[in-house]
Amino acid sequence: MTPWDNPGAAAQFDLARWSAGHLARVEDALSRWVTADAPAGQAHGAPAELVRAMRYAVLDGGKRLRPLLVLAACEAVSGHAEAALRAACATELIHAYSLVHDDMPCMDNDILRRGKPTVHVQFGEASALLAGDALQALAFELLTPDGDVVPVQIQARMCRLLARAAGSSGMAGGQAIDLASVGSALSEAQLRDMHERKTGALLQGSVLMGAACGQSGPGPGQLRALAAYGAAIGLAFQVVDDILDVTADSATLGKTAGKDALADKPTYVSVLGLAQSQAYAQQLLAEACAALDSAEFDHAAALRALAHMVVDRSN
Amino acid sequence: MTPWDNPGAAAQFDLARWSAGHLARVEDALSRWVTADAPAGQAHGAPAELVRAMRYAVLDGGKRLRPLLVLAACEAVSGHAEAALRAACATELIHAYSLVHDDMPCMDNDILRRGKPTVHVQFGEASALLAGDALQALAFELLTPDGDVVPVQIQARMCRLLARAAGSSGMAGGQAIDLASVGSALSEAQLRDMHERKTGALLQGSVLMGAACGQSGPGPGQLRALAAYGAAIGLAFQVVDDILDVTADSATLGKTAGKDALADKPTYVSVLGLAQSQAYAQQLLAEACAALDSAEFDHAAALRALAHMVVDRSN
Repeated sequence: MTPWDNPGAAAQFDLARWSAGHLARVEDALSRWVTADAPAGQAHGAPAELVRAMRYAVLDGGKRLRPLLVLAACEAVSGHAEAALRAACATELIHAYSLVHDDMPCMDNDILRRGKPTVHVQFGEASALLAGDALQALAFELLTPDGDVVPVQIQARMCRLLARAAGSSGMAGGQAIDLASVGSALSEAQLRDMHERKTGALLQGSVLMGAACGQSGPGPGQLRALAAYGAAIGLAFQVVDDILDVTADSATLGKTAGKDALADKPTYVSVLGLAQSQAYAQQLLAEACAALDSAEFDHAAALRALAHMVVDRSN
Repeated sequence: MTPWDNPGAAAQFDLARWSAGHLARVEDALSRWVTADAPAGQAHGAPAELVRAMRYAVLDGGKRLRPLLVLAACEAVSGHAEAALRAACATELIHAYSLVHDDMPCMDNDILRRGKPTVHVQFGEASALLAGDALQALAFELLTPDGDVVPVQIQARMCRLLARAAGSSGMAGGQAIDLASVGSALSEAQLRDMHERKTGALLQGSVLMGAACGQSGPGPGQLRALAAYGAAIGLAFQVVDDILDVTADSATLGKTAGKDALADKPTYVSVLGLAQSQAYAQQLLAEACAALDSAEFDHAAALRALAHMVVDRSN
């Protein structure tokens, strides 16, 4: 009997301790890699003012859920540590860029993020636009280091997964649907489609990128299980986000609470009601855990604990 | 004696004919790949409205200089044809996204591009922002197809080159410097630094990506030669752009003429004067051709002819 066959295992696993060690590595790596230094073999570093906006967008804030999912999934398949650290940072850069652009006046026009003024408020709109663009490129740069620090087949696999998760059929596509849906009544199926892209694609992509750090990639059973796990927690994350938007205050959230309702945006709470949304989040958590049970992993305790964290979080 | 040792070779090479065949393949590929269809193995395609804005930004316009540089450089090293076609399209997607974002009100606020209303005028600012973001992701998606249509070491090499060319030390960095330089007097060295990034990095990157399609990559001598060639034509392109901004009209350019002077932007013409800018463009052309002469290539006639086209173009 392995630990993850034991329903009590998640409770025994110390997520706070596991996260603290990994987060310290991620924060350190982000701080080293979002930099004005010239890449190896390149004449130019990046302009200081652009890098200031990029660092402001990325460092010193955020739950780092995507990096933790990458690292937990890599651990589940005993994958390549350097590849996973790079993938962890890359997913966070994509997430950060999407927030920078999403907050801009032509999108959500938000002035508060992670308890600080948003990037365009702090640096101006043009700088926010460019910082977001540069963060997206940097994500792919991190995935493709020179030399043999990461095997090329893992580099290619991770770029493929990240590009699909971030692009027009994934995150950017979800934001386009979100934009078009303001003021309209969406069915639950439409709402799910939007969120599977907008938030779900990158969360699931993070899990799959972690799994792609395995030397030969995950096995087919593992891949199916992790894809199902990623889909379930991806959707659960958004359901909980919608719940918190009506139940939490701005100080706890670190961003403007109640703004979905104000903006007349369709949410799980507006479509299903609060109680049913809460039940749905629990159902998705159960689905995520069942997916992990459906395949053999080296260490799935962190993935399981992260699923609980996604659903039980207060911000 | 090889053809490129012969000063008459460029004149004998039929660039129009060579370009026509390659451009037809590029246009066809762009039209197939910038699409709402779901990627292989993915549940979701892209939302139709987002794809409309992406196609509007990419199709039916543009000189396709970057794709032609990729294909010519690939030909110079007898590289992998499918990899080169994908790289050709990827460079054009990055170029197209940069124009979409650059034209937005918070940047250059331009309403005319390639003789058509700019993307934000046609589709709204939020859609332009998202279409640009999605085009950047799609570039990396094209470079990393499933299966073995492109060897993984070439996929990784091309993602690395494109990410560096597009990112904070390349194109996005150049745009940040451009933004900060409006109204200030730049030295020639500062102007060159800005343009080496803003336009030069992606043009040089296109040459290097084409060269990266060689099965074992270009040899060190070839790499030095192509890097020097790419740097020279990258800068020449911008010098000629600055010249055309004062000597051509909007109808010929397909974009607003004279806007740099109006916006009080430093240009080669404002720093060096018109005559010296024209002489400098010719000097850079000579440097590009000399670089090609400095190494052995399978077929360098197309690269040489493209260098002439960059300097002698009228729009």
